[in-house]
Amino acid sequence: MTQTSQVQVSRIGPDGMTWLDTVRFDSQGLIPAIAQNVQDGEVLMVAWMNRESLAETVATGRAVYWSRSRQRLWRKGEESGHTQTVLGLRIDCDADVILLEVEQTGGVACHTGRRRCFYRRLTDGVWQETEAPLVDPETIYR
Amino acid sequence: MTQTSQVQVSRIGPDGMTWLDTVRFDSQGLIPAIAQNVQDGEVLMVAWMNRESLAETVATGRAVYWSRSRQRLWRKGEESGHTQTVLGLRIDCDADVILLEVEQTGGVACHTGRRRCFYRRLTDGVWQETEAPLVDPETIYR
Repeated sequence: MTQTSQVQVSRIGPDGMTWLDTVRFDSQGLIPAIAQNVQDGEVLMVAWMNRESLAETVATGRAVYWSRSRQRLWRKGEESGHTQTVLGLRIDCDADVILLEVEQTGGVACHTGRRRCFYRRLTDGVWQETEAPLVDPETIYR
Repeated sequence: MTQTSQVQVSRIGPDGMTWLDTVRFDSQGLIPAIAQNVQDGEVLMVAWMNRESLAETVATGRAVYWSRSRQRLWRKGEESGHTQTVLGLRIDCDADVILLEVEQTGGVACHTGRRRCFYRRLTDGVWQETEAPLVDPETIYR
């Protein structure tokens, strides 16, 4: 437990648990987190959080995920500058999915340079791209 | 493969694969699917799909999930009547999350009788309910 998360877990909720203990992480200690653009409701991306990243997200108001490929905390925008300011967190009925209400810095959430990761739509039996990159991904990651 | 899905997988997409082969199911053969209300952009629920349920969803235009607890296909609304008409499907950059654009019959997506599963929001350090059930869940499931 980090110092910041200890601050956050001090209150007991209606279910008799701290907010962080209510969260049901899976067998690998992870929970999927959906980032939704608070301005237009667009679903930007889905990533995973562990307990530490969720606690840090709430403590700092910046989205922090757990990178499964790199096996470390992934502070969204740490390389690209495309941080996400978290204005609200929701949890579903089973407490096993997190929904983040975010403001997307730079308007680009996807590592491909597009505003969202869901840029392909099934049309006439094929996944067709519905939007082009706003920025060259080569220029995002140094 | 069912007869309906064979119809759906007949075209080859820009990535050289059928739309269904592009989808990256996890080690358990599942992929998370987000149902988003096409009218107001509200994220209603997240459930899981396997290959069969995804193929049937596309073939029928009705959301079909895979129930992990019951280990069987879950045709959304089969008991409650709260079906979901699927107007569009999107997939993310890693092809490991599906986003459904749905019309929610009855305006109730959650088994608790609420319009969406994300009815709890983190406020002052506790998960607080932001909306009440629209219908008594006891009356939904016979």
